[in-house]
Amino acid sequence: MTTPLMEPVLDLNADLGEGFGRWRLTDDDTLLSLVTSANVACGFHAGDPSTMRWVCERAAERGVRIGAQVSYRDLAGFGRRAMDVPPDELADEITYQIGALRVFAQAAGTDVTYVKPHGALYNRVVTDTEQAMAVVSGILRAGGHLPVLGLRGSRLHEAAEHAGLPVISEAFADRAYTAAGTLVPRGEPGAVVLDPDSVIARSVRMACLSSVTALTGEEIPVHARSLCVHGDTPGAALLARRVREGLEAAGVRVEAFT
Amino acid sequence: MTTPLMEPVLDLNADLGEGFGRWRLTDDDTLLSLVTSANVACGFHAGDPSTMRWVCERAAERGVRIGAQVSYRDLAGFGRRAMDVPPDELADEITYQIGALRVFAQAAGTDVTYVKPHGALYNRVVTDTEQAMAVVSGILRAGGHLPVLGLRGSRLHEAAEHAGLPVISEAFADRAYTAAGTLVPRGEPGAVVLDPDSVIARSVRMACLSSVTALTGEEIPVHARSLCVHGDTPGAALLARRVREGLEAAGVRVEAFT
Amino acid sequence: MTTPLMEPVLDLNADLGEGFGRWRLTDDDTLLSLVTSANVACGFHAGDPSTMRWVCERAAERGVRIGAQVSYRDLAGFGRRAMDVPPDELADEITYQIGALRVFAQAAGTDVTYVKPHGALYNRVVTDTEQAMAVVSGILRAGGHLPVLGLRGSRLHEAAEHAGLPVISEAFADRAYTAAGTLVPRGEPGAVVLDPDSVIARSVRMACLSSVTALTGEEIPVHARSLCVHGDTPGAALLARRVREGLEAAGVRVEAFT
Amino acid sequence: MTTPLMEPVLDLNADLGEGFGRWRLTDDDTLLSLVTSANVACGFHAGDPSTMRWVCERAAERGVRIGAQVSYRDLAGFGRRAMDVPPDELADEITYQIGALRVFAQAAGTDVTYVKPHGALYNRVVTDTEQAMAVVSGILRAGGHLPVLGLRGSRLHEAAEHAGLPVISEAFADRAYTAAGTLVPRGEPGAVVLDPDSVIARSVRMACLSSVTALTGEEIPVHARSLCVHGDTPGAALLARRVREGLEAAGVRVEAFT
Repeated sequence: MTTPLMEPVLDLNADLGEGFGRWRLTDDDTLLSLVTSANVACGFHAGDPSTMRWVCERAAERGVRIGAQVSYRDLAGFGRRAMDVPPDELADEITYQIGALRVFAQAAGTDVTYVKPHGALYNRVVTDTEQAMAVVSGILRAGGHLPVLGLRGSRLHEAAEHAGLPVISEAFADRAYTAAGTLVPRGEPGAVVLDPDSVIARSVRMACLSSVTALTGEEIPVHARSLCVHGDTPGAALLARRVREGLEAAGVRVEAFT
Repeated sequence: MTTPLMEPVLDLNADLGEGFGRWRLTDDDTLLSLVTSANVACGFHAGDPSTMRWVCERAAERGVRIGAQVSYRDLAGFGRRAMDVPPDELADEITYQIGALRVFAQAAGTDVTYVKPHGALYNRVVTDTEQAMAVVSGILRAGGHLPVLGLRGSRLHEAAEHAGLPVISEAFADRAYTAAGTLVPRGEPGAVVLDPDSVIARSVRMACLSSVTALTGEEIPVHARSLCVHGDTPGAALLARRVREGLEAAGVRVEAFT
Repeated sequence: MTTPLMEPVLDLNADLGEGFGRWRLTDDDTLLSLVTSANVACGFHAGDPSTMRWVCERAAERGVRIGAQVSYRDLAGFGRRAMDVPPDELADEITYQIGALRVFAQAAGTDVTYVKPHGALYNRVVTDTEQAMAVVSGILRAGGHLPVLGLRGSRLHEAAEHAGLPVISEAFADRAYTAAGTLVPRGEPGAVVLDPDSVIARSVRMACLSSVTALTGEEIPVHARSLCVHGDTPGAALLARRVREGLEAAGVRVEAFT
Repeated sequence: MTTPLMEPVLDLNADLGEGFGRWRLTDDDTLLSLVTSANVACGFHAGDPSTMRWVCERAAERGVRIGAQVSYRDLAGFGRRAMDVPPDELADEITYQIGALRVFAQAAGTDVTYVKPHGALYNRVVTDTEQAMAVVSGILRAGGHLPVLGLRGSRLHEAAEHAGLPVISEAFADRAYTAAGTLVPRGEPGAVVLDPDSVIARSVRMACLSSVTALTGEEIPVHARSLCVHGDTPGAALLARRVREGLEAAGVRVEAFT
């Protein structure tokens, strides 16, 4: 095992505030003690105003970075159904969500400092140039020169870079990769890494060696400044804790991107 | 008729952007050429992101002041059904709406510079102290020390003043007043002034003499810095034009409050 | 302790299907093995079409009676915020919800056989004659002469009886009663009976003796054909099981109303 | 010009009830005096319960057939944005909408007698077998063996026929056809026939000769039992009237399918 030239550093991000009204989903309190970046739902796939305020206040107290987790307008489908939204409409919906979250972040004494698309929109803008450009337009209009968190090589990252926005690449320690470096689609065998020890080991290798073993056995490069952990089940929050502890034990500095 | 000591000045405000998606309601383009303050729907009773952007851009171009027309969350009822929303929730819903509009106003090079509740919420906070205080809390949290446009003597104005927010009083030239200075409830005989000439004459008297004739004949004082005109029908937009022309012909300066 | 003349019989009803899309709330599967009547959410405060179908199919399989749990249109507030809905609109919203549930009940080989209002609407129609009459109008228009499950003496029951609809009275074993026979409002001290053994003992007394001890100590009559059990927490579902077992052990026949 | 062997007969269908709450779109009253089949919005892209009741009552009075105009759940986009809804969910959403409309149709003394998808769903099921089968599943579960109104040769019609449901083919007199018999996509030059006289002449030829002139000049066969007229603008309702008069003047019997 080679030694990296610099101390490895990794951001941990998770989706937060994904309840709506009476319904709860994510264990926000636990996750806010583990992650360095909080992707906060803005009301379109989840996230009511009171939850947004609460999460922003807690994140500000704990020094967790706040990002706008923007989505298609689809409460009934939790933003998991791809939609052919005209680009102009989509851009405006993105701007709206950022504005709605920003007011709570600023009221908590901090600010929205990045944007990450949610669910079906996240997947769509990996390959859909038109929607990727619309998301970027919506971010630009919101002002603040907000970094875009997403997949390296995605159309979204290309569009963001083209527009002069910073991009942050993320990786998934609990998802299998193809030899080409893309995620194995959910639903295919082996797509999700279930063994906690494997997830932790992969996290550490990603952070220290920028590398992961593909489903087909090859060692492939994964350059990620942020690692996405899931928190929508009790087990997932526990795993997130173990990942953080594993990273720190391996000498990885867990710290938000700047 | 006595002569006022100072040149009379009046703001004209109207509700704008009250469509939603495919549906249109207000003649936004015409109204933006007539009013000095635009109460822009923020998505809770009406108002989609693209309409909000469009109205903010046009308002900025024409120097029309942008206000957040905040509402109960009730698209199906157009915000006209009073709701027993818990104060904390209501405050957060107000903050959310202001934030969502602010991002579009700022993108257009201007800002949200006041708040006016819509529909059932407007009526409720005339007398409901708890909800009035919740609205004020929501405005305070949004920052910016935003003035509150509403009825003189309402619980909302009291709560706003108590919290140190500026208040702007408005009058209605097409609504009948009681001798006590309150509005005759819609649905009662004579509640709405239908004759255009009467509406114009009342507007001028309100502006120049701070006075209006009550339904029961008494001359009563009406101190208003802003006059609300309606624009949700073709006839109403036309009437708004005549009101503005009538005010200017009488020497009233039509100008937004500061 | 006097002996009842007839074998005591009681229906157990619970709110079911109160998730929405990605969000779950009630432990529907467990509850369907315990109750004899299922109050199924119809999409206005909770309840998506797929959940409605699933609950109807399971209820049909297990011989559990299906009722329409009708609500104000308020997903964000879970139907817990009273709304001043005009009576005509309210009636039509009730009809709509019954129709939407009926198609799934009939597809499962059974039918909607009663109506129970939810949340804020349930509370409102205890005293609001206008809304109570609107709910009854909506039920009448839906056809089928559906019984109305609710509080004895409520405006809703009066309106239903006036219209010729059957009424079913329900009681709450985990709620305190006043000496006048009304529920102690939530939020007041002692409003909720927390001790499981007390809840079970109260259930048995209600069933066998039509009696309950008021919060202030008096023994008061409670005539109920149905007992409402709650199921929106794991503990609540467990309690529902113990209540059912306790009733059966005491010789109460647990059976739906006819 | 050859003479048809039988008296030509044509159904006229139009989209109705496409307002929502405060917002109106279609001129329902005029259209109900012109068409023989009413595609009634069911609440997912448009259509509130009170409007649904009103349209059903008027349709019943005038002997106009009532169909469920089912849609994706998308009020903000008016059902015009294609959505990747999982088939099971889509089927249940279709069933729900039919049930919700049926209760109003039956209350008006008639029934829902066909189904026509709306907007993006209509277009999607021309080619998407999976969603077409989901729509058919939803219709089957609703019971009543409802005919499906749509495009001849569409995946929807194939799936309906495969499932044993009747299919009704419709044509559009104001839309250009390709030589292959498909509609020229909106947005392409000449896609919409604007000249009223041409629209009327095309309607008559479709009814009497089952033929239409393609955009590229060829005479192509169009076998349609129903003609779709549009009614969402004042001009469109007027055109619908002229089409009906033109058809009747040419000896076409305007009559609903059976």
